[in-house]
Amino acid sequence: MSHPLQGNNIIIESPWPEIDGGLFPVKREVGDSFDVYADIFKEGHDVLSAALLYRVSGRPEWQRVPMKPIGNDRWLGCFELRENAVYDYTIEAWVEEFETWRRDTLRKQQASQDIASDLLEGRQLIVRLAEQARRENNGSRDPERRTALAKLEDFRGRLESSSAPDAGLLLSDEMEEVSRQFPDLRWACRYRRVLQVICDRVRARYGAWYEMFARSQGTDPTRSATWAECAARLPEIERMGFDVVYLPPIHPIGRTKRKGPNNSLVSAPGDPGSPYAIGAAEGGHDAVEPGLGTLAGFDQFVAAAQARGLEIALDFAINCSPDHPYVKQHPDWFFHRPDGSIKYAENPPKRYEDIYPLNFYTEAWESLWNELQRIIEFWINHGVSIFRVDNPHTKPLPFWHWVLDRVRARYPQAVFLSEAFTRPKVMKYLAKAGFSQSYTYFTWRNTKAELIEYMTELSQSESREYFRPNFFTCTPDILPEILQKGGRPAFEMRFLLAATLAPSYGIYNGFELCENRAVPGTEEYLDSEKYQFKVWDWDRPGNIKPLITRVNQIRREHPALHRLTNIQFLPADNDQVLFYSKTTPDGGDVLLIAVNLDPYHAQEAHIEIPLQQLGIHWEQSYDAEDLLGSFRATWRGSRQWLRLDPYAQPQSTMANIIHIKRSGA
Amino acid sequence: MSHPLQGNNIIIESPWPEIDGGLFPVKREVGDSFDVYADIFKEGHDVLSAALLYRVSGRPEWQRVPMKPIGNDRWLGCFELRENAVYDYTIEAWVEEFETWRRDTLRKQQASQDIASDLLEGRQLIVRLAEQARRENNGSRDPERRTALAKLEDFRGRLESSSAPDAGLLLSDEMEEVSRQFPDLRWACRYRRVLQVICDRVRARYGAWYEMFARSQGTDPTRSATWAECAARLPEIERMGFDVVYLPPIHPIGRTKRKGPNNSLVSAPGDPGSPYAIGAAEGGHDAVEPGLGTLAGFDQFVAAAQARGLEIALDFAINCSPDHPYVKQHPDWFFHRPDGSIKYAENPPKRYEDIYPLNFYTEAWESLWNELQRIIEFWINHGVSIFRVDNPHTKPLPFWHWVLDRVRARYPQAVFLSEAFTRPKVMKYLAKAGFSQSYTYFTWRNTKAELIEYMTELSQSESREYFRPNFFTCTPDILPEILQKGGRPAFEMRFLLAATLAPSYGIYNGFELCENRAVPGTEEYLDSEKYQFKVWDWDRPGNIKPLITRVNQIRREHPALHRLTNIQFLPADNDQVLFYSKTTPDGGDVLLIAVNLDPYHAQEAHIEIPLQQLGIHWEQSYDAEDLLGSFRATWRGSRQWLRLDPYAQPQSTMANIIHIKRSGA
Repeated sequence: MSHPLQGNNIIIESPWPEIDGGLFPVKREVGDSFDVYADIFKEGHDVLSAALLYRVSGRPEWQRVPMKPIGNDRWLGCFELRENAVYDYTIEAWVEEFETWRRDTLRKQQASQDIASDLLEGRQLIVRLAEQARRENNGSRDPERRTALAKLEDFRGRLESSSAPDAGLLLSDEMEEVSRQFPDLRWACRYRRVLQVICDRVRARYGAWYEMFARSQGTDPTRSATWAECAARLPEIERMGFDVVYLPPIHPIGRTKRKGPNNSLVSAPGDPGSPYAIGAAEGGHDAVEPGLGTLAGFDQFVAAAQARGLEIALDFAINCSPDHPYVKQHPDWFFHRPDGSIKYAENPPKRYEDIYPLNFYTEAWESLWNELQRIIEFWINHGVSIFRVDNPHTKPLPFWHWVLDRVRARYPQAVFLSEAFTRPKVMKYLAKAGFSQSYTYFTWRNTKAELIEYMTELSQSESREYFRPNFFTCTPDILPEILQKGGRPAFEMRFLLAATLAPSYGIYNGFELCENRAVPGTEEYLDSEKYQFKVWDWDRPGNIKPLITRVNQIRREHPALHRLTNIQFLPADNDQVLFYSKTTPDGGDVLLIAVNLDPYHAQEAHIEIPLQQLGIHWEQSYDAEDLLGSFRATWRGSRQWLRLDPYAQPQSTMANIIHIKRSGA
Repeated sequence: MSHPLQGNNIIIESPWPEIDGGLFPVKREVGDSFDVYADIFKEGHDVLSAALLYRVSGRPEWQRVPMKPIGNDRWLGCFELRENAVYDYTIEAWVEEFETWRRDTLRKQQASQDIASDLLEGRQLIVRLAEQARRENNGSRDPERRTALAKLEDFRGRLESSSAPDAGLLLSDEMEEVSRQFPDLRWACRYRRVLQVICDRVRARYGAWYEMFARSQGTDPTRSATWAECAARLPEIERMGFDVVYLPPIHPIGRTKRKGPNNSLVSAPGDPGSPYAIGAAEGGHDAVEPGLGTLAGFDQFVAAAQARGLEIALDFAINCSPDHPYVKQHPDWFFHRPDGSIKYAENPPKRYEDIYPLNFYTEAWESLWNELQRIIEFWINHGVSIFRVDNPHTKPLPFWHWVLDRVRARYPQAVFLSEAFTRPKVMKYLAKAGFSQSYTYFTWRNTKAELIEYMTELSQSESREYFRPNFFTCTPDILPEILQKGGRPAFEMRFLLAATLAPSYGIYNGFELCENRAVPGTEEYLDSEKYQFKVWDWDRPGNIKPLITRVNQIRREHPALHRLTNIQFLPADNDQVLFYSKTTPDGGDVLLIAVNLDPYHAQEAHIEIPLQQLGIHWEQSYDAEDLLGSFRATWRGSRQWLRLDPYAQPQSTMANIIHIKRSGA
């Protein structure tokens, strides 16, 4: 029977990050340093050492970095995330027997106590250490290790050559140093779990999204735009500084129960129908709507985007129209009513008769789930690595865990945005289950108190370890009241908030034109392009494209805007002025951002600059430049004043993005 | 292959209480209601039900109580803890398929939609439910269940007798009610862990301790007191209202390197030595120091205490003197030096040459650990169920887990107090590993801010689920500075704090006499009875026995003082006045306690009574009685004033314990 204390006598607990007892991975991005904390302690007063162990998941060998105590039995270790992969990590701790002996013996020596017996003990420790080191490192070709081993052997020989061991040698710093290189890990303790961190590419955290309704990118209101017409829009989108072009579904649209304009139940011939009613005679989720063109045309469009540094994101909407090929090929994938018909989607009393939901509970689940994985991977093989997933909260939550793990294992570059406008815990669970990003409640957070509370939750609570927000100002389904009522200043304000609060944000085409005509009493766009062909004048007067272009440029130039958790809210003595900082950890990039939350009036505020935190003395002057162009000044002191005016000339000033530099720096 | 969603599609997470992912049990006491929370949710909009499952650990059958949703996907269930035992608990949730169907169909009916197909579906659900109910309940003798089954059968028959099912019957409340009694649990989901709660007897939470140095209870300063002399003190201890009499070690004391008075290294003949140097020719941990008497004498002492409602607690100090029988019988249980001698205890440069520590890491661990378990159980069989464990943080932490689990399984009444004056995380870990109670930092928390911060940590943080404080005012090792300097008012104040802040508290004999002579510059008592025979005048002038007696009486009469977590700090406009309430959950017992933290001066304060919380209207008068006798008044309004004076006549007033009653109540 092995000793119950072996591998067990050092307590390693409360590691951080660890989500739900290790059930879920946390998320980081390539290039990040990954900090891991744990409480590590043991009975008595032994000297402990600890190491953080990590590896790309699946590889056999652990890498080791030392952990350091940071007070109150808490330890910290750190490693660099270099690969777009899932990493394992865990913690190991052990007793430094020789160091403990040395510390205690030095204390006795200082107290003039007899240490003769202690010296014998110390020699015994070194002899044992040397024997073990020889056994374990005999074949080592590491020259440093061989040198250390030789040194240890030499010390051992010198200690054994006399009956009373040499106290000076035994207690020397050199002895300590060499012994440290051969820790006795036979009794080392491992944390009982292996934890994981998903290391995504940076785009999973940081990016500006442009949602583009593909069929509305042309000039003929009687037909769908084509891939060529879509491609013609790319130069402008690139100029505006976006990173991702996201397309709502591009697949063939069903004819049965096709919806007409403004979601009417009756469609006229020529009405295109909702692109979310996927599937027709022309094909299903792996086909392209003929009005847009061919799959080859899509490939060319993707290539054109990539050539401009733009990435294409696709919608993954697990809906079938009654005309989807699956309905005939796999009737067992659908719900059937007692009268034999297939059930359409409903959320009583709402009915979606143009859509059949798939039945994840079917006995044929395996073929269905595999097919859905195949669809995702089909598009990855056509150059799409970002998926915006439609309504994931209406599909079984464990399915997402299953499919996202599988796709990620083969395609670590894949990024999944969860469109789960649902209850908070479901929204967060989807992130834990593997979604890279999520839509949020940002769209409905308008007041200063609401924005601070929500941003604090997102950036400071445990969920920040796995939940990455993507702040959309609007979507084809959501034209928020503030935009309907507040007009252009509201568009500017909501855009500025989205683009500076969150590292990932998005707009939906038309937003740049301040399009805000709604179906009265709803958040639906009037004459929504969800149900009809539409053309736009992309240079319509009153557009805010210059502001968007400038802010996206600022985002690219300022790494402080590439992260979420570095936000800090600062005092401004006006409830209509939100004031916050974003800084890089090294303090090299400091932005102070003030946004007017009132689209109807100019607002003024005194703001408090956290000078001490910025390392600026209160008597020292510093440069403050509004990167949006309203001022460039030399400031002194922490209290400053600003005015944000929707009606300022020559251009409105809904925000200042103030870049702070020490004078002369 | 089973379906991956079976038992898996409902998410059950963040249960509370759950410590370290279920690694450790929480603690409650017999008679408690045990509340269990969890987040429970699923994709879509199905109606869910959930149950809390529990059982005395080891029994095969689960008991079930329904859980209720309390908002934001959080659910709550509760069961009564009736037995002094360890309980298992977990959570189960399932879809109410019929209820979901009924809700949706009613919505459609209200929207005047066609429900013909839905009715067929509903009938199908009832037929399936009835078939399953018959299979599963065929042999049931429960008359209620048989009636429900018959009703369901009758409904099914009526539904099947016509081609179009009867909408009124299918959608009726009666149908709903009967269907609810036969939930389909084949797809029910269980939380992935079984959690545990240790249900101790109430004494583990609530009790007044009197630490009695057995050999000092006599009248002859040249010899040890006897068990008969100890027994003679019990009536007074009973009168003072204590519940537990705790004895430092009572075992034979070693002669080798025996300590003399005031911890001197040389002892004279007749010096009794430290009782922590356990073991001599007369025996070890299962023997009694001959000066005190025999084991039979001890048994009589225990019986005498029990007859007065007093429980005896023993010290469990895992130390051996060099003369302990173990040293000869089991040299392999000790640490050996290279020169062959056994290592004495040390914490360099401190040396404890009268004590040999046991080696838990020995290859003979099993015989040693078993022997230590035997010692505990030996004393349980002699009527001792409470153990104060000496320095548990210097023994391997997993040993405690091992031994406490084993003893608890055989003797659930056993209570263990951890004397771990050590770092916070080690202290808490010992509680997680199974200690029932712990000494705390209370002894060194003096200011209002310190007391509020520490009490808030103990009563509100996660540790309250497993860490039960026992507030000792002093110990044979710790005479705190405030008592050395503050004299009698300090003794009153620290006693009042201990006895009203924590449900368990203790004093060490001499405290009631305000004994405060220290070895200068230390927290050690001068002429400590740890090293010499001592006699006391238990009625010495200046004693605070009347106050102790009164407060222990108040504690017994007021259940609000039996709990820790019901404390609430309230406003008092003086930093030297600590003001707090203790109330029972039903509001039946309300105490407001104000303590003067300044032993040198009278202090006055305005206090704020939380009238709204107490259900008292601001215009309503209420009775306020200081149970310590300084006033009885009718108050009106939330702001009151009080004066706490160490020099008040005829008796000092270091505190008010104000009992609040609504006038006329």
